[in-house]
Amino acid sequence: MSARVRIVGTGLIGTSLGIALTRAGWDVRLHDPSPTAVALARDLGAGAVAAADDADPDLVVVAAPPDVTGAVVAAELEARPQAVVTDVASVKVAVLEDVRARGADTRRYAGSHPMAGRERSGAVAARGDLFDGRAWVVVPSQWSSEKAVALVRDMATAAGGTVSTMSPAEHDAAVAVVSHVPQLASSLVASRLRELTDPAMALSGQGIRDVTRVAASDPQLWTQILAGNAPAVRDVLHHLRAELSEVIDALDTLVEGDGVGAREVLARVVAHGNAGHARIPGKHGAAPTAYATVTVLVPDRPGELGRLLHDVGEAGVNLEDLHLEHGLGQPFGLAEVSVLPAVAERLGEELQARGWRLHG
Amino acid sequence: MSARVRIVGTGLIGTSLGIALTRAGWDVRLHDPSPTAVALARDLGAGAVAAADDADPDLVVVAAPPDVTGAVVAAELEARPQAVVTDVASVKVAVLEDVRARGADTRRYAGSHPMAGRERSGAVAARGDLFDGRAWVVVPSQWSSEKAVALVRDMATAAGGTVSTMSPAEHDAAVAVVSHVPQLASSLVASRLRELTDPAMALSGQGIRDVTRVAASDPQLWTQILAGNAPAVRDVLHHLRAELSEVIDALDTLVEGDGVGAREVLARVVAHGNAGHARIPGKHGAAPTAYATVTVLVPDRPGELGRLLHDVGEAGVNLEDLHLEHGLGQPFGLAEVSVLPAVAERLGEELQARGWRLHG
Repeated sequence: MSARVRIVGTGLIGTSLGIALTRAGWDVRLHDPSPTAVALARDLGAGAVAAADDADPDLVVVAAPPDVTGAVVAAELEARPQAVVTDVASVKVAVLEDVRARGADTRRYAGSHPMAGRERSGAVAARGDLFDGRAWVVVPSQWSSEKAVALVRDMATAAGGTVSTMSPAEHDAAVAVVSHVPQLASSLVASRLRELTDPAMALSGQGIRDVTRVAASDPQLWTQILAGNAPAVRDVLHHLRAELSEVIDALDTLVEGDGVGAREVLARVVAHGNAGHARIPGKHGAAPTAYATVTVLVPDRPGELGRLLHDVGEAGVNLEDLHLEHGLGQPFGLAEVSVLPAVAERLGEELQARGWRLHG
Repeated sequence: MSARVRIVGTGLIGTSLGIALTRAGWDVRLHDPSPTAVALARDLGAGAVAAADDADPDLVVVAAPPDVTGAVVAAELEARPQAVVTDVASVKVAVLEDVRARGADTRRYAGSHPMAGRERSGAVAARGDLFDGRAWVVVPSQWSSEKAVALVRDMATAAGGTVSTMSPAEHDAAVAVVSHVPQLASSLVASRLRELTDPAMALSGQGIRDVTRVAASDPQLWTQILAGNAPAVRDVLHHLRAELSEVIDALDTLVEGDGVGAREVLARVVAHGNAGHARIPGKHGAAPTAYATVTVLVPDRPGELGRLLHDVGEAGVNLEDLHLEHGLGQPFGLAEVSVLPAVAERLGEELQARGWRLHG
């Protein structure tokens, strides 16, 4: 399966998609309001620059900013009456409503969403493997034709994505919980760090680093995403605020009242977090696996971590995950090597035999 | 410097401390209400089991659960009138108030807090290197003698910690922001995952994984910590809830009102998150450094990641951080290798020359 595809918008997603589809043998034409941006995408191997006399494409992929996606989708449906049109915006109900409000032919439109954002943006961050193995949700509306949905699925598969299908409302509710609200919570927690003293900041451990990593994301893009998914996000936030208020009330009664029932509230919130966290799938879409961890002291010199993982490989053990932690003021880090529980003990012995210092 | 130290409570922290101080040449005696726990700690190399006829120690370290720490500190001060007493609880104002309320000799007491918790607990997770290079805050009160503070600092240094000093109120305000509120936010975000469908959970990316990692923590321990630091935690939560409510109001007006000013609120919250996140110190206590990232496709087979990092070492480049991302349904992962910006381009070229496939 290959086809003629027109990509409108050559930022991170559009350029990465162009590279991936070109590699897959598709005939890719690129368009962007900025001639510089489209030339950069071409130079990165994302396809040819679209010309006015190009034959009509089979598929148009709109990779524009979320707040103009609906308008661009409608314009492309209008200008290319034979083409199927999709988009890659991370919100789907608002885009569909916008397309409908503009009176466009919704039979030829099926939205989609590759779960492949990054903290970085722009064509220079593009990679042809950006979608490899990532979830790519195809989001037909009730008006989408079967042909349109099939072509969008083919495109997402050709780009390397792992394709699933959801309705627009299902999609927006899901990403509100697994992406948009976590982003907001991370920003709100990080926001509290602004007023802290340097000695207080020095107490930062791995927890705050993990919780706030995505707080480094682009405000402009996230404003569009959050505004575009306002109904679903606020629904989740209302629930979150209610549970937060329970916590605040519990702390209030501990400080000013008799504290009765407060600890039950706190324990329940943390236990609910345990239960929710346990639902996150493991890698490769498998059920979550409890890996065993072998923790090794690694000197902070070139090649030491490489030597460690070389030795892990020599032991015939497959590394499932790796977590590095650097101590404050010390010339080494801790490497937490996650492996299947059955091989952890043997790995620890083999590493010690090769001179590594384990913890505990 | 070495001394006779009595450790009361042989869980994760007490046992790890015993191992570390024994290695440093200190004479360590262990006590725990559970004979099984104390025998396990001894077998792990944490010191000798305390006997009734032991000579009085120079220092007592109370490593009991937070909610009984004050009572145990007071009892040890009473029973050993020559000894300095400290504790390792992650809240400090409440412990000091409890010790004072019990009429104990506060001149010989100086609290402390090693920033070395883990998701796991218990002596079996103990490691002699647990404190190496981690921040260890010594928290004297206005009544603590200089001798007491000096001995606690010596102990924390001998255990491997990087020692700083704060007042109890400063400490509690700091950990509320960098530890306790992030924990709660992570739990609240994870709590929202409980009701999601499996297809919705399949959209989970690295963001939700990072934000909710600490949501796997122990409810019982965290109930004690949050209750023990209720005044400082609720103060931060009030600010966080106010900013959250601004977001909800902004989303409300987007859904039901005219949306005027809503995007400014959303952009400001994300930008505040950027600013707070940027304050987190880099490794080794240095100012945050913007590392460059080289992203490499790594087949999911034993030894491949080791081979990659071996090659990074061969290139003479020091790895600053490493982040692994596994795709859903694909037999490989992405390794994001963070290095100093000046060497990133050369590293990319050297890796490609060695047959690695880079992204983009």
